[in-house]
Amino acid sequence: MSLSCPIPDAGNDIIELAHGGGGLLMHRLIDRIIRPAFATSNDDFTHDGAVFDVGGARLAFTTDSYVVRPLFFPGGDIGSLAVNGTVNDLAMCGARPLYLSVGFILEEGLPITLLHRVAASMRAAADAAGVRLVTGDTKVVERGKGDGLYINTAGVGALRSAVAPAPRLVRPGDAVLLSGDIGRHGIAVMAAREGFGFEGAIESDCAPLAATVMRLIDAGVELHCMRDPTRGGLATTLVEIARTAGVEIRIAEASIAVSEPVRGACELLGLDPLYVANEGRFVAFVPVDAAGQALAVLRDAPGGSEAAIIGRVTANNSRSVLLDGLIGGTRALDMLSGEQLPRIC
Amino acid sequence: MSLSCPIPDAGNDIIELAHGGGGLLMHRLIDRIIRPAFATSNDDFTHDGAVFDVGGARLAFTTDSYVVRPLFFPGGDIGSLAVNGTVNDLAMCGARPLYLSVGFILEEGLPITLLHRVAASMRAAADAAGVRLVTGDTKVVERGKGDGLYINTAGVGALRSAVAPAPRLVRPGDAVLLSGDIGRHGIAVMAAREGFGFEGAIESDCAPLAATVMRLIDAGVELHCMRDPTRGGLATTLVEIARTAGVEIRIAEASIAVSEPVRGACELLGLDPLYVANEGRFVAFVPVDAAGQALAVLRDAPGGSEAAIIGRVTANNSRSVLLDGLIGGTRALDMLSGEQLPRIC
Repeated sequence: MSLSCPIPDAGNDIIELAHGGGGLLMHRLIDRIIRPAFATSNDDFTHDGAVFDVGGARLAFTTDSYVVRPLFFPGGDIGSLAVNGTVNDLAMCGARPLYLSVGFILEEGLPITLLHRVAASMRAAADAAGVRLVTGDTKVVERGKGDGLYINTAGVGALRSAVAPAPRLVRPGDAVLLSGDIGRHGIAVMAAREGFGFEGAIESDCAPLAATVMRLIDAGVELHCMRDPTRGGLATTLVEIARTAGVEIRIAEASIAVSEPVRGACELLGLDPLYVANEGRFVAFVPVDAAGQALAVLRDAPGGSEAAIIGRVTANNSRSVLLDGLIGGTRALDMLSGEQLPRIC
Repeated sequence: MSLSCPIPDAGNDIIELAHGGGGLLMHRLIDRIIRPAFATSNDDFTHDGAVFDVGGARLAFTTDSYVVRPLFFPGGDIGSLAVNGTVNDLAMCGARPLYLSVGFILEEGLPITLLHRVAASMRAAADAAGVRLVTGDTKVVERGKGDGLYINTAGVGALRSAVAPAPRLVRPGDAVLLSGDIGRHGIAVMAAREGFGFEGAIESDCAPLAATVMRLIDAGVELHCMRDPTRGGLATTLVEIARTAGVEIRIAEASIAVSEPVRGACELLGLDPLYVANEGRFVAFVPVDAAGQALAVLRDAPGGSEAAIIGRVTANNSRSVLLDGLIGGTRALDMLSGEQLPRIC
């Protein structure tokens, strides 16, 4: 990926928090260190998961680690997040999530009752999402060397179509849909972590998306690309897709739902909701003539009452995202360039 | 699992290092907290991985997190360990390892050159084992909240036979084979960590086992059970299998190869090599009439010159492991009951 953004990182030879923030530094790290070491010709590290065939079955495979603080927050906890996050990454590949693995890294001194509570939450989330937790691992690190509890989940799903939705399928003319309001997860976690006083008023949107995606597929909607805007928020997700697909995306800010409590918190904290993490929302790129049908499915889903068509793919000779602002004017969006909300995933 | 061992853990309501040691406390934690939360009727959390069908394909799926200190040690590093460990868990299920996911948890301040070195080691190990690293994730935790670098890998493999080798297939009369000498990995890591002065003399046995397992399958050897004796060592692994299978296993200590440097280090440190971790060895349970053929395959493999038939399954009315000692006498082995070698995986 060529990066035109002028933020310097020459001489940055150590890992910074922003390398995990989902934005520019993380993308550079992946491009410069991870991808060259790992990828062979056909691998697409820009997507939420890998897609491959085994013995005639077409599978999706994905992983995420979860280091969120605090472990419990309004609307979820590290356990439900670890299940739903991986379920959603599989769904974004157009796959039905089936089986999850769980790797716990526990800090010496962690109360076992807390682990029990997290495991029960994982089981409940797995049951709700229709997946099974089938294999696992437990490691313990010395007191002070961990931070209570980290969880990795990996997931295997079955592709629902011959061609998996992916950024390279995005076309000029595609409509861009958003499945609900944005910013809940990041603000809920930040409030619970920092004690801003409005915690509880805002709940994380943490939820499984697979059922909604399966309904889109069952309805025959041609899905070019789907992505859940987690770390880095909606803006970073759209910029990633625009750059990978080599297209220009034009979005109307007025069409993006932000609840009043989230908007108020963002104003108080100087945050842009477009860059705040979500854990139960996704964007879908579909042919414009399928947009109405897709929107009806999204609006019918839990939490989907504010689903909307937020924009369209306008050209294929650019790699940018343009936002038509609420009060007029158009600006280009870029990836999150720092660490807006530490440890929200 | 009912545990007859009298080590008390009532009142232990926090995680201790020994909960990650591969021995008794870890098994209790899994039995009491993890399994009840996760498992449904058919899940077998006692094995190295899960086995299931997707779209007509029979797959194995497994995960492990790696928190070894130091990150680099004679014979390997956290990267090669993370690849080979998961490759080997798939092989122990009788599967050809195919695809791996990688989750990095990085501590703020980690030199990026170190991450680069680890990623290159992972790629080299993946190439050597014939697997591909196809999807990944990177998280960053604050300085002081991690320990440099943790890695989780999960893996997907294709079963080579209709019935996956598993403890429940072990039968009285089965021969027990061991693929080489034991104790190298645990001692190599401990020496590198603690600076005992003999570091370098002992290299980890860290290596991929899949090619050897595939040769056993290609040779038509009926594999009842395979397991790589990592955390907890050979003794704990055999006790796990005896308890899960409901059989008695009888082993001859004289048939178990321990190199002179490892034996010397164990004597110096007061360790029993039977409880020291390995990362490139496995035990195989096969019908006695296949034992000779299996042994020939093991001896022909890299590092297999000391492969041996170390014992047999003697009864099915017991759940114990009996060791005929070097100097006469027979004793029952138990699982590792404390934390012998912290953070060796």
